Amino acid sequence: MIARAMSADTLAQRLLEGDRRALARAISLVEDDRPEGWELVREVYPHTGSAAVVGFTGPPGVGKSTLIAAVTRARRNAGRSVGVLSIDPSSPFTQGALLGDRIRLSEHFLDQGVFIRSMANRGALGGLSEAALQAALLLDAAGREDVFVETVGVGQAEIDIIDHADTVVLVLMPGSGDSIQALKAGIMEIPDVIVINKADNPLTDTMVREIRGVLSLAGPEAVSERGGGWRVPIVKTEAARGEGIDALVERLQEHRSHILAAGQLAERRRRNLRNEVLSIAAARMRRRLEEDLREDAEFQRLLEQVVDRRLDPASAATALLAAAG
Amino acid sequence: MIARAMSADTLAQRLLEGDRRALARAISLVEDDRPEGWELVREVYPHTGSAAVVGFTGPPGVGKSTLIAAVTRARRNAGRSVGVLSIDPSSPFTQGALLGDRIRLSEHFLDQGVFIRSMANRGALGGLSEAALQAALLLDAAGREDVFVETVGVGQAEIDIIDHADTVVLVLMPGSGDSIQALKAGIMEIPDVIVINKADNPLTDTMVREIRGVLSLAGPEAVSERGGGWRVPIVKTEAARGEGIDALVERLQEHRSHILAAGQLAERRRRNLRNEVLSIAAARMRRRLEEDLREDAEFQRLLEQVVDRRLDPASAATALLAAAG
Repeated sequence: MIARAMSADTLAQRLLEGDRRALARAISLVEDDRPEGWELVREVYPHTGSAAVVGFTGPPGVGKSTLIAAVTRARRNAGRSVGVLSIDPSSPFTQGALLGDRIRLSEHFLDQGVFIRSMANRGALGGLSEAALQAALLLDAAGREDVFVETVGVGQAEIDIIDHADTVVLVLMPGSGDSIQALKAGIMEIPDVIVINKADNPLTDTMVREIRGVLSLAGPEAVSERGGGWRVPIVKTEAARGEGIDALVERLQEHRSHILAAGQLAERRRRNLRNEVLSIAAARMRRRLEEDLREDAEFQRLLEQVVDRRLDPASAATALLAAAG
Repeated sequence: MIARAMSADTLAQRLLEGDRRALARAISLVEDDRPEGWELVREVYPHTGSAAVVGFTGPPGVGKSTLIAAVTRARRNAGRSVGVLSIDPSSPFTQGALLGDRIRLSEHFLDQGVFIRSMANRGALGGLSEAALQAALLLDAAGREDVFVETVGVGQAEIDIIDHADTVVLVLMPGSGDSIQALKAGIMEIPDVIVINKADNPLTDTMVREIRGVLSLAGPEAVSERGGGWRVPIVKTEAARGEGIDALVERLQEHRSHILAAGQLAERRRRNLRNEVLSIAAARMRRRLEEDLREDAEFQRLLEQVVDRRLDPASAATALLAAAG
């Protein structure tokens, strides 16, 4: 026990000093759901809260990872340290990539000022998002000034991790008709910044007009509800060629200044942290339930009755919860 | 108590006889989370399992409700009774609609053989999907031979209700690039039938080719894992003009024959019912937790510590769960 406590302590110290290997090890610990990982986050948590956390979300295939690579380059040129966390299972950060993507990303793999980590989607979204939130805290504690989180989202409830972001960027491309419809229908929340990537497509300007239409329909209240008078900018980029990246970085900084000035950053973080605590608690309850039931004879018996139409699903759930205390 | 038991009994009897007003009342009871509603489902559950439940999912704006209206017309012409359940917040069934849609749907509102019900999205997805599953059982118990469930889905985990369907239809339109990307990336599960609606668009055939490409990439194993050798058909429709509906109805019947012949319907329903029991239990646990905490002084105290960076979110969750026993 003493040895473990000491090694965790050392790991925490090295992490707080910004040591990359300590950071990699720490994220693996939370990803593997190891008690030392949780203990570590507990220790370093007082040193978090300085990073600017930007979430990049959008459908697969729009070029989120290329965009993040380009923004990372710009932030590195400005002397800032960057951490990237990808929980998009379709991202080149996460799995196989075209050679071109590999080359663009590998530039950053060699830079000590950039730490890139992908987290695999292990089916259990609760578990993954819980681990990803911890990983974002670890990047923050390790002194990464900018933390970029990549998630896939196409018009439904976002994966929880996006709730951790100070600024939410929705990345689309010409052809993202489904996402526009989802915005229009009010199913997808309006983000802080919208990027149209692959903007060399002739349909880009039509798309910008459509989005402006959606934003004006949402009205000043809808926009200000989220951002306190912030007007959502639409930025056209060609991330693969570095086009529009400076403009995007400027918009990100403007958004940060805006929420800092309006006192919204604190308010947003309070709400996010509340959701985070509840989400972790709920995910653990569900996981505990499923583990308890995997080999449970009583659950199998209840299930047979449900399949035979003798007991309805809700009554079976009631019986389960009663048995669980 | 006796009076309530008697009136519930009467309601159950009237429901089983197919009485529309009893059905409407019963669904309101489960939607409002009233104990009588759950009791009613418990009573009529042994009379469920006969309906063919088809889930229609897809991004907003592709014309799912018009398509369901057209399929409903075809099934009515074949003498079958139909129940429609919409939990798509952007659907004309659920909220405002263009005049054209209203007219197309109103034809069915006057038909005793069709029962249409929309359920509002009340933010708490767990609660809504729980109520929707109960409503689907009520439609089944009331003798609806076909139950069509409309949900919005754009490439992420579907709302649980789709798990209740025997057959899952993904509805797309030319321009649904995000959904194609999501299919390609393996983020969206391959459905049983794919419909390209609004197929008068010149880009339709290109889209069909793209989808065929995705399906062939997914490979025979991926396809057969879900359907035991079922090859996912792609059906082109123009629902507003009734084009392609007969072909779609044929494919739906073929799929049903296929899963019946292969013994898969029973297997699918067993898996769905298992998920349903677990989802109801988990949703209730989460709701109970949130209710318990709304006014909880200890939770507020923990939250302040988290906001002040003195206690990390995971440790706060641990403390909450320990306090909850």
